[in-house]
Amino acid sequence: MSQRQVNLFIAMSLDGYIAKEDGDLGFLAMVDNPPEDYGYAKFNETVDTVIIGRKTYEKVLSFGIDWPYKHSCYVLSSSLSGHTEHVEFYNGHVKDLIAKIRQQEGKDIYCDGGAEVITQLLKEDLVDNLTISVIPTLLGTGIRLFPDGRPELRLQLVSSQAYPTGLVQLCYRRAGKALGMRVS
Amino acid sequence: MSQRQVNLFIAMSLDGYIAKEDGDLGFLAMVDNPPEDYGYAKFNETVDTVIIGRKTYEKVLSFGIDWPYKHSCYVLSSSLSGHTEHVEFYNGHVKDLIAKIRQQEGKDIYCDGGAEVITQLLKEDLVDNLTISVIPTLLGTGIRLFPDGRPELRLQLVSSQAYPTGLVQLCYRRAGKALGMRVS
Repeated sequence: MSQRQVNLFIAMSLDGYIAKEDGDLGFLAMVDNPPEDYGYAKFNETVDTVIIGRKTYEKVLSFGIDWPYKHSCYVLSSSLSGHTEHVEFYNGHVKDLIAKIRQQEGKDIYCDGGAEVITQLLKEDLVDNLTISVIPTLLGTGIRLFPDGRPELRLQLVSSQAYPTGLVQLCYRRAGKALGMRVS
Repeated sequence: MSQRQVNLFIAMSLDGYIAKEDGDLGFLAMVDNPPEDYGYAKFNETVDTVIIGRKTYEKVLSFGIDWPYKHSCYVLSSSLSGHTEHVEFYNGHVKDLIAKIRQQEGKDIYCDGGAEVITQLLKEDLVDNLTISVIPTLLGTGIRLFPDGRPELRLQLVSSQAYPTGLVQLCYRRAGKALGMRVS
C-alpha cells in the first residue's frame, strides 16, 4: 500500500492572495456559478481526512452554515484541545499529525489551509499535490497563499483547465516522484 | 484611432516570483525548449515600444548578449540620462512617459519589467493586457511580480494554454473594457 498523500485544493487571485487582509473572501463570488463546483466534489471523493488551522476553523464557524466537511477533521491549535462534534484539536506539529494519520489506512489527506498551515507543510516537504484555482483578479494586497521563506519545490503540471468564469485551475504534483506508484 | 495599449509579457513561478532575491533567473531554464518561444515573437509584432526599469536594463546588459529588443526602448531611471545606441533614458514618472508615447501613433507598448515599474503602472491603472507564463515550480522566496500594496483590478481571462514543459500561459485583459474597440 502506498503512502496517503497530502493534497491542497485552494483558490488564489492572480497576484497570489487567498483572502483580503481581514480574511474577506468576497472576490470568490466572481466565479460563483452553480452547479459548477470546479471539481470539488470529485476531489472530496479522493480524501477522507481534513486538516485546517485554527484561524481557518474559526472562519468556517463564522459563516454560520452547516459544518461543510464530510470527513474527519483535525484543527491545528496551540490553545484549543479535545474535540467537538465535528473536529479534533491537535496541539502538536503538523508533521507529527500527518505521521499519525498515516499510521492508519485510508484515503488521501486534504489540507484546506490557511496559509500558515500550508507553509508549514511546504517547509516540511509534505505536500504531494496542489490544485490551485486562479481567480481572474488582482486583489492588490491580502493574505498570501505562498508567503516568502519556503524551500524551493519543483512541480510537474498534471492538468490545466479554463472555465467560462475565467477561473483557471492548475493541478500539479511534486516533481521527482515516480508516476503510478499509488496502489490501493 | 484607439489608444495604444500597455501590455505585459512575463514569466513567474507558481508562487509569484520573477527571479530569486539576487536576480537569478535560472528557474526559467526548466521551460527552455527551443524552438518553442511561447508566443514571444508573435507578441513582439503587436508592439513597437519597450519600457523597462533601470535594474532590468542593467540585468539585460549583464547577460553579455546582443541587445535583445528590436523596438524603441525607454529606460526609467533617476540617475541615468540621455541615450545610448539602444535606449533612451527617462527621468520622469512612467505615467508621463506613457502619455508622451501615446502622443504619437504606433503599435502597443511592452513593459518588460521589472516588478517596480509594473507596480507603478498597476498603481496608475495603466496596464491593459497581461500575459503571464506560470513556471511549474515554487521558488520559495525572491522578487515578486506582484508585491503588496497595489489597487484591486478585475481581469478578464482571454486565453490559457498549457505547454509540454508544464508552463501555463495565462492571458488577461483589464475587465470592464469594451471588446473589439481597437481599430487601427
